Amino acid sequence: MNFLEERILSDGNIKQGNILKIDNFLNHQIDVDIMRQIAYELKRRFCGVEVNKILTIEASGIAIATMLGDVYNVPVVFAKKSETANSTDDNYVSHAYSFTHKKMNKVFVSKPYLHPTDKVLIVDDFLAEGQSVHALIDLVHQAGGEVAGIGVAVEKGQQKGGATLREEGYRLESIAIIDEMNWETQEIVFRKRE
Amino acid sequence: MNFLEERILSDGNIKQGNILKIDNFLNHQIDVDIMRQIAYELKRRFCGVEVNKILTIEASGIAIATMLGDVYNVPVVFAKKSETANSTDDNYVSHAYSFTHKKMNKVFVSKPYLHPTDKVLIVDDFLAEGQSVHALIDLVHQAGGEVAGIGVAVEKGQQKGGATLREEGYRLESIAIIDEMNWETQEIVFRKRE
Repeated sequence: MNFLEERILSDGNIKQGNILKIDNFLNHQIDVDIMRQIAYELKRRFCGVEVNKILTIEASGIAIATMLGDVYNVPVVFAKKSETANSTDDNYVSHAYSFTHKKMNKVFVSKPYLHPTDKVLIVDDFLAEGQSVHALIDLVHQAGGEVAGIGVAVEKGQQKGGATLREEGYRLESIAIIDEMNWETQEIVFRKRE
Repeated sequence: MNFLEERILSDGNIKQGNILKIDNFLNHQIDVDIMRQIAYELKRRFCGVEVNKILTIEASGIAIATMLGDVYNVPVVFAKKSETANSTDDNYVSHAYSFTHKKMNKVFVSKPYLHPTDKVLIVDDFLAEGQSVHALIDLVHQAGGEVAGIGVAVEKGQQKGGATLREEGYRLESIAIIDEMNWETQEIVFRKRE
């Protein structure tokens, strides 16, 4: 069991409806030590892969992305969410449905911050249905850039985001993959890495 | 002229309506080196002040807050914004008017993440009217904690947020204070530190 799986077991709280609350260290209160360890672990797993930009989406991806940018020493860009953003000369715009907020968000990045020469490592705290990550991939491709890989802290393996991204041929590294969780017993089964 | 003032002069873009765009290094694309330097400069200015938690508000404060948490080695908490959050047993809730989005936001933090024993350094990227910072102060006080200080990267000195906070007796450190800016000439006048 790795450092993040251990922390999820000790601090996580499973709620009815397939919800894992780990906002005491990941996405509301932030434990900077574990953020840094996540960043180093992602860099280790993407060893040999050329990366010149980190891309995430507001808000909770920003902490991991900042640490990862620091570890790689490359710029970080966070895509913004809005219900009203339009495709203009200034912005690349994509779409992501938020299951949490039950609405379609427009996701956008100012054009000067994504380039055809970019080799982008996309990063987020959680991966479930993969809506946000697919929007970020779309933005990189609109700019003519390359997706070097996708790194996430926690993948919810019962939801289809991770499987779809792997089928599409993306290199996806999830530090913890949850295959089963039970809110009544608070048991969690993590996927074993090959 | 300090490192941040120099960077604002070289990379900033003044738009009509008293708007300073520095989203190429501060709040859309993030230059991790300058974030780290901002964090060390704030720690230097708050030398001797006891701090055991960093508090900011989503989204663009999170990068600076993460770096500052790393430099102080204390937990970071980011307050969330919502139009719908209610005061419950679970959340401390305050209010902040967003002049950018022309709406009142509820600003909240889960109760377990603010304590009576907390000595909180509040941090944000921009300070203008001070609505967000006042909401964060309110949240700390609701929890019975203490505001150790307020650190911001860029204060817009023509707007009343900074003056109000100083009058209220808070220790406010702004790395760059803009007293005048002119979108036609692109000239910026920074306040000199005493």
